[in-house]
Amino acid sequence: MDSPKNVDLIIHAKWMIPVVPSNTCFTDCSIAIDNNIIVGIKPSDSIDQYFDAKEEKHLGNHVLMPGLVNAHGHAAMSLLRGYADDLPLDTWLNDHIWPAEAQHVSAEFVKDGAELAIVEMLSTGTTCFSDMYFFPDQTALAAHNAGMRCQISIPILEFPSAWANDADEYISKGLAVRDNYRSNELVNVVFGPHAPYTVSDATFERIATLAPEIQAGIHVHLHETKGEVEDAVAQNNKRPTQRLFELNVLTPATQCVHMTQVNEDDITLLQQTGAHVIHCPESNLKLASGFCPVDKLLKANINVALGTDGAASNNNLDMFGEMHTAALLGKAVAEDASAIKAHQAIEMATINGAKALGMDKLIGSLETGKSADMIAIELDNTEQAPLHDIISNIVYTHNGHRVTHSWINGRLLMDERQLTTLNTREISHKANQWQERLRKN
Amino acid sequence: MDSPKNVDLIIHAKWMIPVVPSNTCFTDCSIAIDNNIIVGIKPSDSIDQYFDAKEEKHLGNHVLMPGLVNAHGHAAMSLLRGYADDLPLDTWLNDHIWPAEAQHVSAEFVKDGAELAIVEMLSTGTTCFSDMYFFPDQTALAAHNAGMRCQISIPILEFPSAWANDADEYISKGLAVRDNYRSNELVNVVFGPHAPYTVSDATFERIATLAPEIQAGIHVHLHETKGEVEDAVAQNNKRPTQRLFELNVLTPATQCVHMTQVNEDDITLLQQTGAHVIHCPESNLKLASGFCPVDKLLKANINVALGTDGAASNNNLDMFGEMHTAALLGKAVAEDASAIKAHQAIEMATINGAKALGMDKLIGSLETGKSADMIAIELDNTEQAPLHDIISNIVYTHNGHRVTHSWINGRLLMDERQLTTLNTREISHKANQWQERLRKN
Repeated sequence: MDSPKNVDLIIHAKWMIPVVPSNTCFTDCSIAIDNNIIVGIKPSDSIDQYFDAKEEKHLGNHVLMPGLVNAHGHAAMSLLRGYADDLPLDTWLNDHIWPAEAQHVSAEFVKDGAELAIVEMLSTGTTCFSDMYFFPDQTALAAHNAGMRCQISIPILEFPSAWANDADEYISKGLAVRDNYRSNELVNVVFGPHAPYTVSDATFERIATLAPEIQAGIHVHLHETKGEVEDAVAQNNKRPTQRLFELNVLTPATQCVHMTQVNEDDITLLQQTGAHVIHCPESNLKLASGFCPVDKLLKANINVALGTDGAASNNNLDMFGEMHTAALLGKAVAEDASAIKAHQAIEMATINGAKALGMDKLIGSLETGKSADMIAIELDNTEQAPLHDIISNIVYTHNGHRVTHSWINGRLLMDERQLTTLNTREISHKANQWQERLRKN
Repeated sequence: MDSPKNVDLIIHAKWMIPVVPSNTCFTDCSIAIDNNIIVGIKPSDSIDQYFDAKEEKHLGNHVLMPGLVNAHGHAAMSLLRGYADDLPLDTWLNDHIWPAEAQHVSAEFVKDGAELAIVEMLSTGTTCFSDMYFFPDQTALAAHNAGMRCQISIPILEFPSAWANDADEYISKGLAVRDNYRSNELVNVVFGPHAPYTVSDATFERIATLAPEIQAGIHVHLHETKGEVEDAVAQNNKRPTQRLFELNVLTPATQCVHMTQVNEDDITLLQQTGAHVIHCPESNLKLASGFCPVDKLLKANINVALGTDGAASNNNLDMFGEMHTAALLGKAVAEDASAIKAHQAIEMATINGAKALGMDKLIGSLETGKSADMIAIELDNTEQAPLHDIISNIVYTHNGHRVTHSWINGRLLMDERQLTTLNTREISHKANQWQERLRKN
């Protein structure tokens, strides 16, 4: 037998949910990491035969699993958490969110807000997030500084903002950001046409041409509300999915966010094009946008990932809460208590998110050859006992606050709930300052 | 001016949500407690003029609010948390829950399970719970020993269990339990006819006669699923609400649990009789039972309280999560983002619960003359910043794990997250032993 291979780190975990293979939980399992890559997963009582580690970590009451992928959000909007709630969608946007954004959004706002969001996401088990907001360079910088993996969408719409004046400028400034992060291991920049009702055919066509040329994904709000679809049909005599399909926007690199309105034609188009759906259950509920038929989409072999949306419409970024809501709501919407099983909710929050973002060769599961993007959750407490079923427990009884450790690309970013790269005191202080500045007169 | 009155305790809180008056949050507010009763609420900078306390407590980053009322559950079923999930309702009951109960439910099971549930409920802000299960004497005893307030329903059905053989025996044994706790300040025993499909007309009539005589409430599962209502209509040619109305079971002391199927006739009967609705959103979603039209009920001036149901169908007893789900789901079901506002969700979990249980003269709000049943929640953390709106924050971003203190009837039962009356280590140990005993072969 060969002598054990030298590696950087071995983690011994009481339980491990690798996600691939599906619906599996190992007991007393160890994982070997070398050069930030998972190099082996073995039973704890035999790992020593294969690997010899510089450092070992024992997580005796914990479950180790892949870090969560928050596939849709607007990180900087954490500064607007609780700023305006319980309002009809148009009042919320027209009278509160948009005026606040018009007055306050700046590079500083976005950097401070993104840092605030990253603290919350890291603390609750997210290791990769997808973002769409103005000043994407600032969100990218905040993620880079924190050591967090992300997909940054270049915001593209026909209307001016503090960041750009028209679609051409959004695209050109965005491509410059993409260029800056070309060789960055953690930051991936893609196209983010805002929505069918804010982006023209010409702009969509330009994105559809550029995206495959530079191998960039497309992230777009689609079919968020019944009103959006009805208005589009009245205007164009076609549903937004059909319009985007005809403009060549729907591809295997396209992420369709929300999809609360789905008919058989939409399903056929999603199947035919390989486009992904990002489900944001808590935001959809809070804004009374409608119900995404997740069970129907999964049964049609459409990839469904999970996102929190921004904190202004959620109002938290805890992906464990989102998994819980997705699993519960998916059953009720399907009228089937056996729909959206616990392991499927975990898959939506991990491997499906990785697939949607085109990162599934790298993250989304604990498998040899993948990046060490992992979290540990402590299960040793009375509120979670008994532990008849670990996977059920993670989805139905767990909250993000039980996450104790987080690694991204092999780097330990949270250790016993202490963040290692972020100054939470300073970030809180800035959030409180923004609270004062944003106060309505 | 009079000299300050001597009192037992003054608590100075950064924020206070008294619940009555509605939708109010005081800043820098103090509350005086004497002989377990709230004797005054004043601005912190003037409380000294009114009261002189033996003990003062400063909660400088906390919100103080009434303890939560979990208006429906089956505490002992916490031992079956995660035992069987993601199954159709009939498979779940027939092949898993009922066989496990038939084999294992005993006085010991109920006492150990109730203690486990009480740890979780106290730790997450519940100070009063309503329970319906076999061996109600054991649940009552566990609550009494812990110092927790509760309503214990005498389980009544026509079928035998380990506790009783027929409806007469359930009632007579249950009335003996009620007699034992007659002078107990914390334990209130009421009638708990299980459901229209498990209880005969004769038994309902007997309960309808007894209940007003001894001034006991009635707690009943009603319209949990579409199937229940359809079967009843097929059998009796009337909906269960109509049948219960005709049997005089619907009164202002009656708590109708679930009500996922509600038509205009049902609303009229609820209005006419003053019966209460207990909404259990997470259980209804998880079992795909249907959607309770909460907004419609509230607009019809029907009192709607909130419950977690048992941990086997939730799978947690965190009433903050339940408030969150109730607020989100209520908007989506009403197709109105302004429905079920944050303060209404808090009311459902406090004063409405107290009303449903006939305890609103005693608990459910922080008001002079009421019992000191209170909780404190710490808000000083990055994950909750900024604090634009405390009431929104409590409902939409908070989780029960932020509750730091809990008082019931003036007694401190949780101090800086440490329970003062329960041995959590021993309770966890027993839960783990039950996990082994319950393991399926």
